Parts: sequence; C-alpha cells; structure tokens
Amino acid sequence: MSVKKIGILGSTGSIGQNSLNVIRNLNKYGFECSIFFLTANNNIDTLAEQTSEFNPEFVFLHNPSKYNDAVKLIGKKTNILIDEKDLTGLVKNPGYDILISSLVGFSGLVPTINALESGKRVALANKETMVVAGEIMNEVCRKNSAEIIPVDSEHSAIFQCLAGENHNEIDKIILTASGGPFLGKTQDELKSVTLEQALKHPNWNMGSKITIDSATLMNKGLEVIEAKWLFNINVKQIEIKIHPQSIIHSMIEFKDGSIKAQMGLPDMRVPIQYAITYPVRIQSDFPRVDFSVSNKLDFFEPDYETFRCLKLAFKALKSGGMYPAVLNAANEAAVELYLNRKIKFFEIPDIIDNALQNYDDKPNFNIDSLVEVNARIKNDVLNKF
Amino acid sequence: MSVKKIGILGSTGSIGQNSLNVIRNLNKYGFECSIFFLTANNNIDTLAEQTSEFNPEFVFLHNPSKYNDAVKLIGKKTNILIDEKDLTGLVKNPGYDILISSLVGFSGLVPTINALESGKRVALANKETMVVAGEIMNEVCRKNSAEIIPVDSEHSAIFQCLAGENHNEIDKIILTASGGPFLGKTQDELKSVTLEQALKHPNWNMGSKITIDSATLMNKGLEVIEAKWLFNINVKQIEIKIHPQSIIHSMIEFKDGSIKAQMGLPDMRVPIQYAITYPVRIQSDFPRVDFSVSNKLDFFEPDYETFRCLKLAFKALKSGGMYPAVLNAANEAAVELYLNRKIKFFEIPDIIDNALQNYDDKPNFNIDSLVEVNARIKNDVLNKF
Repeated sequence: MSVKKIGILGSTGSIGQNSLNVIRNLNKYGFECSIFFLTANNNIDTLAEQTSEFNPEFVFLHNPSKYNDAVKLIGKKTNILIDEKDLTGLVKNPGYDILISSLVGFSGLVPTINALESGKRVALANKETMVVAGEIMNEVCRKNSAEIIPVDSEHSAIFQCLAGENHNEIDKIILTASGGPFLGKTQDELKSVTLEQALKHPNWNMGSKITIDSATLMNKGLEVIEAKWLFNINVKQIEIKIHPQSIIHSMIEFKDGSIKAQMGLPDMRVPIQYAITYPVRIQSDFPRVDFSVSNKLDFFEPDYETFRCLKLAFKALKSGGMYPAVLNAANEAAVELYLNRKIKFFEIPDIIDNALQNYDDKPNFNIDSLVEVNARIKNDVLNKF
Repeated sequence: MSVKKIGILGSTGSIGQNSLNVIRNLNKYGFECSIFFLTANNNIDTLAEQTSEFNPEFVFLHNPSKYNDAVKLIGKKTNILIDEKDLTGLVKNPGYDILISSLVGFSGLVPTINALESGKRVALANKETMVVAGEIMNEVCRKNSAEIIPVDSEHSAIFQCLAGENHNEIDKIILTASGGPFLGKTQDELKSVTLEQALKHPNWNMGSKITIDSATLMNKGLEVIEAKWLFNINVKQIEIKIHPQSIIHSMIEFKDGSIKAQMGLPDMRVPIQYAITYPVRIQSDFPRVDFSVSNKLDFFEPDYETFRCLKLAFKALKSGGMYPAVLNAANEAAVELYLNRKIKFFEIPDIIDNALQNYDDKPNFNIDSLVEVNARIKNDVLNKF
C-alpha cells in the first residue's frame, strides 16, 4: 500500500494533536502516513515541535504576524507560508490525499471546500462548515468525486453503523449527548454558573469553543444540522438522547426495528483513525472500553426548555437557507464573548435567538454570501458588548 | 422480486410460530413469501391452523402416530408425510429457497445438513446442530454454496455487526447474556429452586428446553461453541457479559478499539426476519425499543462458579472432537429429566460433568458417529434415573 499523504488544518488544536497521535499509531502498525502540511494560528511552539517530528513539506500560519517567530523556531528548510492564496494552493495541491479539517468554526469553510473541489478525502472535524454550507459541500463532493468522512464521534458512529447497510432502510438516527457539565441544572441554576465550570466537560477533553457548545447543548444542535447533510436525512428522523457516560456514540434504528450502535471510550483518536483508514480498520494501542467500569449506560430526554440552544438549532434548520449560518455566526460570537467574560452563560441563547429573529435577508445561497452574512452577524453581536 | 419459498422444521414451536408471524409481516410489506413445507411433532391442532392459513405444499409429522389425527384435521388435499426418507426429500427439494431450522436439539442435525447439501439458505435457530457438528456444517456449506444465517439473537447481532466489516479486523466478540431467572443466586440457593421458577425467563418467551438452558447458563455455553463455528473465531476472542435487560444482543470489538452493537427488544421476530431478508431489511410492525423505558443498560461478569454449565461448555470446546456432542447429549437428557421432575436443578451440571469425564472414545468425526454417540450418551443418562 502506498504512503498516505496528509494535510492538517489546525494541527496545534485538540483534533490536530490527536490526529498526529493517530498518525504515530498508524505508522507503528504498518499503515504508512506522511505529513504534507500543517497549519496553525498562534501556537508556534507546538507547531515547531510537530514540524521537527513529522517533517511536513509545508507549514501555513493563519496569523501572519507570527512569521518571524516561526522562522526562528522552525528554521528555513521548511517552507513557511502566510499568504491566503498559498493556503488555497496547499489544500488543492495534488501532492497529498487526505485533509484533516480541524479549524474551529466558520474559518474552516473555504479551505475545506477548496480541498473537496480537488477531489480529496476530507476527514471532517470542523462541523460548522457542514452546518452553514452542507448543501454546497455535498454538491462539490458529487461534482469532484471527493468524499467527506465525519470525525465528530457521533457522526463517525452513524457512518460506521451504515457500513454494509442500505441508506433507504434507515428509520431514524439517534444522536447521543453527554449533556455536558450542566446536565440536570434548572434555568435558574444556569444563571450562576462560572466559565471555569463550563470549561470542565465531564467526559471529553476538547478545545474551548466546542466545550462551551457542549455546555449549552448548541454542540448537539449543530450536530443535528450536520447529520442532516452528511446522511441526507429528514430532520424528523433525527432524535437526541442524553447518555451521560458517552460510551454509545450514536445509533441507527432501521426499518425492521433493529438498532445498530457504535461504542467506545470518549477518545477522538478512534474516529480520526477510522476517517483516515476507512474502509479498513488498523490496530490501535488506545485504551478500550472495560465493561466492568462502564457497567451502566443511561438514557434520558434532553431538557429543551433549559438548554434553549438546542431548540434554536432545530428552528434554524427548519427555516433553512441562511438561517443555520446566522445561528452559527451568532453562536461563535456569543461563545467568544463568553470566553472573554463579556457576557454570562445564560445570555448565549438570548443573543442567538435575537440574531435569528432579526435576520430577514434572502441573498443567493453561495459561499460569497455565506462569508458576508457570517462576518456581518458576528460583528453585529461582538459590537453590542 | 420472485416469491421466496420457505420450509420450516418445527413450525409449531416458539421459533416456528414467530417465523410464520414474520412471514405475515413480510407479505404485508411486499416481500413475498410462500410456505413450501411445515413440520411438527405432536401439536397437530396448531399445525392444522397453520396449514389452513399458509397452504404449504407438504406437511411432515415427526411423530408418525399422529398421522390419522392429522389427516382428519388437515384434510387430504395437503400432502401429509411421515417417512424419514420423505423428510430428506423435502429438505433437499429444489422447490424452495430457505429452510428455517427450528427443531429442538440434536434432532435437527440431519435435516439441516441435508438442506445445506442442497445449497439452501438455512436460517439457523437450532444451535445444537452447530455445537455438535459446526466443522462439518461449514464444510458442507463451502462445498455446496449453501449459507447459514444465524437466528439466535446473539449470533444475529454479531452477523449484523459484521456487515460491511472485515472478518480479520475483529478483536473480540462480546456475547451478552440476560443471566436467566436465577441471576444473582448462590450455589446454595440454586438447591431449592423450582421447575416453575426455572421456566419463567425474565425477558424472553421461548420453548421449554432453551428456557431451562438459559436458567443454567448452558444456553450461553452452547452459544459460545456456536459462535466459534459460525464466525470462525478463536474461543479466546469470545467474551460473555451479563446484561440483564437483553437490549444489547451482542457486540464486536474491532482492532481499532471501535465496538459495534446490535440492539432491540427481546423479540425473535427481528432476527428471524433478517435471516430471511438478508442482505436487505424490510419494514416491520414489531414493537421498538423505547429508550425512556429501556433507560438503563447494565453489564457484569458471569458467575462461573455458581453456573457451572458455562464452564463445562468451555471445557468441552477446548477438548474438541466429540466432546461438544457429549456435552450437548448429556445436557439434552438432563433437561428432559429435569422437565419430567426426575432430577433437581443443581443436578444438571453434575450429570454433564460426569458424562464429559467418563467419555474417552475417539471415533472418526462424522455424522454417523455423532448420531451414535449422541444416542448412547443420552440413553446412558436417561437410564440412570
């Protein structure tokens, strides 16, 4: 088998670091991978270490002001790029096979689309791109024989459960949700939670944006929209079940009543590895489920009244068109404000609700208008605080 | 699609009746099935009702003394057969496609093998045939392009989880077990259990032989041996977990650490239907899992010291050759004695252990020697009480 060449958008983030961990495992077990490029925003120290270990042909800095620091740390024998056009050239470059798309939020959209236009396999961790532009991405995939393999643990679970099955025999998809750090809290109790509490996810160790999204349950809302586009499924066929142990990552119920579930520890390396190696599975040294520890799996209904973001996501999906992009932009801005301690936790859904209610534009639905709307809604929210 | 013609060995038993229920459902949803033959032992009334509804081309009576009663109830326009040679002719008849093999115990072996020799699909509910002659059955399948689709809920679960996966990427199979009506009891407490208690399975409504096997956990032991042959897997790769709710029917852990599980209510109609319709799934009206009711799934280790039959099954499998057949024959006889109130519940493993310890013959391993050994061991046990 030939060596798989891999590009990672956002290699210093949580998914990026887990991806490199997976690549170490794959090389150990004979599934050879090499790194074609890495990209990073500000964390130049980590990027330099990664570069030294994995020898990428290129590195790209999303933040050009880090260029001089990067050259000092990484040295001149690696090509260090900072121009947006170079990023486009990189993701479209025929010199690699698989893009791991793990930028945070809307910022991943354009490079991910560019990679799909070049017929790449995209291991998609950046769910926001699918939320805002699922229809466009599916169309680009079709036209260019590209493929999207989901990395989100829930969508990877559904994707794995679909192997060997017929899409038209799905009755429903059951997305599981841990419930986040505030599971069981009342609306009143949410008024006094702290940022530190919100950042402590009970099961998953992730980046700060997705961790806050998990606390508001917006993450599950985004996943519903992502699932709709990834699996070409009606929103009525998508159910959410709170499953606090995060062992069952999601399920499909088929029309004969049989349910398939994919399970595992909450460890992103498993879905990342699967997205790279699919349709085969490669040995891993990652820890396994021990049913004498994970000996109790619970399920219950989400509290849609307390965790309003979930309801807002369903509303945006139902409204269609630009509304998921408006939802996402307002959420990204609100989370940024919250992480900067400018607003309280319970204000996040208010801000998003407000943005959805005030939006009434109907531009043509394309990448340019998405970029414009995203920037405008984000600025509107950020400028209010 | 052409009409599927089906033969049912043991149509008046629990699996047989569920199979006809499935066929009603399939015909309702456009997957047309007709009945080529039905067979029964003593329950002529039920057989007559089934014949009147499903119009089989043949019925066969395993108990020839019921012939006159059967003719009276069923009438002469249906061919009623009683000669063993006629059974062989029936199961080998090119006029049908799928055999539902649901006789109880060793008695199903010869007709099941005959069907496989004629290249049929066998929907196998009769696990004992695989326990005693798995190697032979696999060989017959290979030679005659026949296929065995498991109906046991655990093996159907494994078979379903294997769809779209590579066999050599299995790390282990996890068979779940309800634990039966005596789950949690001590060896001492097992001394005073009654037949009525043993016949009350907490989750499954099944025939009396398998219900007793479930109470002793011999059923799970037989399933381990069945799994070894069905899935061509090393016994070290098979684990048992007690899962009292019987919602997860079994699981596969793959070598990347990902686990797939198949789930559903304890309803044999789902695996029976899948064995008929595979590789497609057809709509069903059977009740579905409601996770607001099935909201807690537990797992723990089996108690091998109290439920000794499970250990004996592993021992017989390890010894190989005729030993699984000796285990099975002694168990069939012991269960018969127990159902006739000739022995106590706790004596069942004693009888089996004794039969295994006293057996030291090494005949050629073939159907004739299996028939001989089975009859001898059974008689030895039955004659002692």
